[in-house]
Amino acid sequence: MEIIGGVARFQGDVFPQQRDLFQALARDGQKPKTLMISCADSRVVPELITQSGPGELFVCRNAGNIVPPFAMKNGGVSSAVEYAVVALGVSEIIICGHSDCGAMKAFFNPEALETMPNVKAWLSHAEPAHEVVRTCYGHLDHDEQVQAMVLENVAIQLVHLQNHPAVAAGLAAGKLSLHGWFFDIESGTIKALDSNGEFRDTNNPDDLPVAVPARKPRSVSRIVKAA
Amino acid sequence: MEIIGGVARFQGDVFPQQRDLFQALARDGQKPKTLMISCADSRVVPELITQSGPGELFVCRNAGNIVPPFAMKNGGVSSAVEYAVVALGVSEIIICGHSDCGAMKAFFNPEALETMPNVKAWLSHAEPAHEVVRTCYGHLDHDEQVQAMVLENVAIQLVHLQNHPAVAAGLAAGKLSLHGWFFDIESGTIKALDSNGEFRDTNNPDDLPVAVPARKPRSVSRIVKAA
Amino acid sequence: MEIIGGVARFQGDVFPQQRDLFQALARDGQKPKTLMISCADSRVVPELITQSGPGELFVCRNAGNIVPPFAMKNGGVSSAVEYAVVALGVSEIIICGHSDCGAMKAFFNPEALETMPNVKAWLSHAEPAHEVVRTCYGHLDHDEQVQAMVLENVAIQLVHLQNHPAVAAGLAAGKLSLHGWFFDIESGTIKALDSNGEFRDTNNPDDLPVAVPARKPRSVSRIVKAA
Amino acid sequence: MEIIGGVARFQGDVFPQQRDLFQALARDGQKPKTLMISCADSRVVPELITQSGPGELFVCRNAGNIVPPFAMKNGGVSSAVEYAVVALGVSEIIICGHSDCGAMKAFFNPEALETMPNVKAWLSHAEPAHEVVRTCYGHLDHDEQVQAMVLENVAIQLVHLQNHPAVAAGLAAGKLSLHGWFFDIESGTIKALDSNGEFRDTNNPDDLPVAVPARKPRSVSRIVKAA
Amino acid sequence: MEIIGGVARFQGDVFPQQRDLFQALARDGQKPKTLMISCADSRVVPELITQSGPGELFVCRNAGNIVPPFAMKNGGVSSAVEYAVVALGVSEIIICGHSDCGAMKAFFNPEALETMPNVKAWLSHAEPAHEVVRTCYGHLDHDEQVQAMVLENVAIQLVHLQNHPAVAAGLAAGKLSLHGWFFDIESGTIKALDSNGEFRDTNNPDDLPVAVPARKPRSVSRIVKAA
Amino acid sequence: MEIIGGVARFQGDVFPQQRDLFQALARDGQKPKTLMISCADSRVVPELITQSGPGELFVCRNAGNIVPPFAMKNGGVSSAVEYAVVALGVSEIIICGHSDCGAMKAFFNPEALETMPNVKAWLSHAEPAHEVVRTCYGHLDHDEQVQAMVLENVAIQLVHLQNHPAVAAGLAAGKLSLHGWFFDIESGTIKALDSNGEFRDTNNPDDLPVAVPARKPRSVSRIVKAA
Ligand SMILES: [Zn+2]
Ligand SMILES: [Zn+2]
Ligand SMILES: [Zn+2]
Ligand SMILES: [Zn+2]
Ligand SMILES: [Zn+2]
Ligand SMILES: [Zn+2]
Repeated sequence: MEIIGGVARFQGDVFPQQRDLFQALARDGQKPKTLMISCADSRVVPELITQSGPGELFVCRNAGNIVPPFAMKNGGVSSAVEYAVVALGVSEIIICGHSDCGAMKAFFNPEALETMPNVKAWLSHAEPAHEVVRTCYGHLDHDEQVQAMVLENVAIQLVHLQNHPAVAAGLAAGKLSLHGWFFDIESGTIKALDSNGEFRDTNNPDDLPVAVPARKPRSVSRIVKAA
Repeated sequence: MEIIGGVARFQGDVFPQQRDLFQALARDGQKPKTLMISCADSRVVPELITQSGPGELFVCRNAGNIVPPFAMKNGGVSSAVEYAVVALGVSEIIICGHSDCGAMKAFFNPEALETMPNVKAWLSHAEPAHEVVRTCYGHLDHDEQVQAMVLENVAIQLVHLQNHPAVAAGLAAGKLSLHGWFFDIESGTIKALDSNGEFRDTNNPDDLPVAVPARKPRSVSRIVKAA
Repeated sequence: MEIIGGVARFQGDVFPQQRDLFQALARDGQKPKTLMISCADSRVVPELITQSGPGELFVCRNAGNIVPPFAMKNGGVSSAVEYAVVALGVSEIIICGHSDCGAMKAFFNPEALETMPNVKAWLSHAEPAHEVVRTCYGHLDHDEQVQAMVLENVAIQLVHLQNHPAVAAGLAAGKLSLHGWFFDIESGTIKALDSNGEFRDTNNPDDLPVAVPARKPRSVSRIVKAA
Repeated sequence: MEIIGGVARFQGDVFPQQRDLFQALARDGQKPKTLMISCADSRVVPELITQSGPGELFVCRNAGNIVPPFAMKNGGVSSAVEYAVVALGVSEIIICGHSDCGAMKAFFNPEALETMPNVKAWLSHAEPAHEVVRTCYGHLDHDEQVQAMVLENVAIQLVHLQNHPAVAAGLAAGKLSLHGWFFDIESGTIKALDSNGEFRDTNNPDDLPVAVPARKPRSVSRIVKAA
Repeated sequence: MEIIGGVARFQGDVFPQQRDLFQALARDGQKPKTLMISCADSRVVPELITQSGPGELFVCRNAGNIVPPFAMKNGGVSSAVEYAVVALGVSEIIICGHSDCGAMKAFFNPEALETMPNVKAWLSHAEPAHEVVRTCYGHLDHDEQVQAMVLENVAIQLVHLQNHPAVAAGLAAGKLSLHGWFFDIESGTIKALDSNGEFRDTNNPDDLPVAVPARKPRSVSRIVKAA
Repeated sequence: MEIIGGVARFQGDVFPQQRDLFQALARDGQKPKTLMISCADSRVVPELITQSGPGELFVCRNAGNIVPPFAMKNGGVSSAVEYAVVALGVSEIIICGHSDCGAMKAFFNPEALETMPNVKAWLSHAEPAHEVVRTCYGHLDHDEQVQAMVLENVAIQLVHLQNHPAVAAGLAAGKLSLHGWFFDIESGTIKALDSNGEFRDTNNPDDLPVAVPARKPRSVSRIVKAA
């Protein structure tokens, strides 16, 4: 078990330098401001690409960075969302897709899923994205269709997020915003979905794309009064 | 959005030094040998405590490092397990619990779950561990009971892992081993469950505790022949 | 059974005058352009308030005009949506809420639901709307909160609609638009949700509010190419 | 959006003549005596074929006039049934099938369902009817088999109704009766299922067929006393 | 483990006398004509009360002799029913309730179920019977209500049986009949439900009560032809 | 109905000889020490092969002696397990497979399951056993593979048992043991799984194989204390 060598290095070399941080975190508990939902892929390390230290990022990872809709009681992702918003009070949720995603590529190679029935069922939560790709991106080549699938998947998971009660309320109360990211492994770049549905660069700090911004609370005037 | 500053540091400072690694990973795909299932807690960073780089660790994270049993079709954790074993061929699965786990502490403060119905439902997958604690650890003080809950939870999730077809077959074929870890935030130590049900230190590389070792294929002599 | 008198009147007086229409519909099949999802309430008659004749309106009615998200396989509403879009090719889906809705009022009188466990479970699909009302409309009086609940419920069901694959694809392909209506029983008025989240009058035919308009197909330029 | 013209006609021409009725209904609430469960088909308008006005008919419509059995918690149809019986106290439930039903015809053209997975799953609730047709009506021609399917489907949905607790209790208490109808689009006729399993004409008001009549409360003598 | 003594007695004393029968059954397979669904209660031994030998009775036993409706995919009871009718071709299904049934008595002592959440959920399949008892048998004393519960439960499980496709088809084809029994532990008597809803003695072989007799195949004349 | 003759023999000949036993059981209730979970197969009579009388064996029978994992709420087998352990306090649970099992043989003849969709879904709970057979026993002939399937199925159902909260607690508290049996119809022999994974003879009362023995309560020393 090679990995045990890394554990020894952590305990011997790394932890002693961060002891104060870890002890404070053990004493005071965690107070992360951000939930990141990303793929289980070994090449997409959330803390690395955001340069976050222990205590900064609440992280949910699964194959395909998927968020089943709230009605699926009992779900691990919905629970992570609920815990992050209600118990921890995070102010941002990021769904982070990535290039060369095995889960998304499986939609173009369905035979491979025959030996993975659970993965197949799980990916049904990305079926709306696949239907969009089938309907609207048929003229693209294979690689472009895969990338379209990754991007549309991020978009549909943001729809799913919005039917979680705590998220719906957080958005309406102006306390929460939702972000859709694309991480490109080869170039190290991150693009973010804006509210017009385009993925744009994230390197202008004054013009960061936000997929679903926090709203202002609606005014009472919205309420219709019978004549 | 503070986190975006970290993204800029990653792109400006970190990625250029790892460009070759990332480009190789983009070109050749991922080949991790280990699946780690850990908590979404921001203080438990799998790649940090195992000193793993990009491409080395397939990671599934959820509140409470839970593995629902296989029969729960459609599940994200089961899909990650299936993908890791069938598609990636990992040889080790680690379930990593940790001290001060908010999910496990919720069992001792059930009122807090009333506003988190999805978390409550999700934690039902740790109910067998809770029942063991209630039955057998009633004489311990509160903190000890919490810790017992964390450890028993790791143990029951290892039971759940074993009813996944790919895991059952991997164990029987001698190609897969299962590990149950406990990470202590305050001390940075990691203990591992051994096959006698004890959590022991991991710092003796010649005597690493393994919860469920790979088996030898059974001999035909096991098969009963009718008289 | 009083209603049987109405059947006799239909057969004796009404049908003979519409015989040609019915025979054409029997011969040629139905070709409605609109799916209306409305409440089962006896006071909200879709064909009456839209003055639609036989063959014009595909209608799904349930308590609370609810659309469970797509992931709930086996559902009657999702099936009606799928059939309307895929088999019939409707170009509009209307979700129509209404004043004095017993289903929505039940959220403010939860004891009444104790004897109706199925209704209680069904209404969980409107829980995100209820959470918004609880969080953002606490300063309103009871009647206003009920009305806010009706409106927010229409809004959340429109979110649910968008995760149906056929709807997601229809919107992206520019062939489908989604509408959110509010019918006031007392005044006979209908308001419609616009894309800014406001319910507005529908009596200006040149400025009809549309909740989710058909999109133009996205251009290829959306697709990110790795550097 | 053509339908908006109908809305204008309703508001301008129709509503003013029914204003008193609608205001009374808004003030006093609904008190319908009948729940009708019919198909979403645009050619089958429940209020038209029963000549019912606003406030008279509680209506649940879905593809195939299906009633999943009670055990399917969370269902829209079961909720409409429960609400109608428990909250509104209806005394009659009618399940109304019809000729040329697209949902029933789909059983004879299963390929068409491949692009409608939700409809396919939904129609599994009519599978018992289909199995009866396959087993007992194989000697009929295609059109007759379709009609047999429509009729057997009405019959099986009446079985499903009877396992709803409120329906079972209403029947046993003599307060509720169940009706199975067949509406023929071409001729405008309605046939009703009698308690011998035959669909008969409904034009003799002194001999109306009833599928499942209200029972008398059982006498205590039914109760077996141990010797 | 006391029971192992019984195993030794079976192998030493009983089996040698039935060796021919067991070897024939091993060689030729089973061909039972009857499926009995009875309670797991240790006092209700199906083979004993019907004096059936090995190979004669296909037996499904669970707490409360319950048959969930067919729509509950994945169920053990539905599978036993399906296997018995389709693979074995049984001609009779018996649902056998009994006096002093712990499962039925639990409806009158709901607190006891708090520590048995699975039992509680399982018994929801008998909820229609309970609702009938609550509505119609309130004037009876406790013991009579328990017995009414047992009898009504047998009746509702017979309703559930009828929505299984293979059962619906078997009845319609005249190849299957359904029986509802009540076994009284104290007196050893068995009563059977007749088609009028009464439980009657079974000791007149010329007048055996049958709950749901095999039907004759319906004649084509049932099929309505459009005018 | 031939079976009714057996009922008459039971009432006339058998019951009178056991009247005292039955009356005591009716008066005092059942107190079985053992739960047996066996196949519905008519050739496997639990009370016969263990020579148990009325009141001695709580029995759950289904096709394939399957125990779905606990997370499958609402299940009949899980309810029987829960009732047996919590309400009756049994000290042993036996899962009893058998030779020539139709359910297990179906894995090698999947076409036969096409007409039995419920059985097919039910057998998915034995899929881990099937995957082990496919992976590790490919070199065996057909009959041996069938037998391997039966044995591996017993083993995986024992895994499922251990995730039931009451079972997990009973084992940890030293009050419950789990047994895996194989009954050979042709020879009448019973083998039992030992804790090393081998099925061995049961005819040495001093060396009975036990699959999962009752444990001693864990000592507090297992609990890790943070440094
Ligand atoms: Zn990925
Ligand atoms: Zn944790
Ligand atoms: Zn309403
Ligand atoms: Zn129809
Ligand atoms: Zn019982
Ligand atoms: Zn068997």
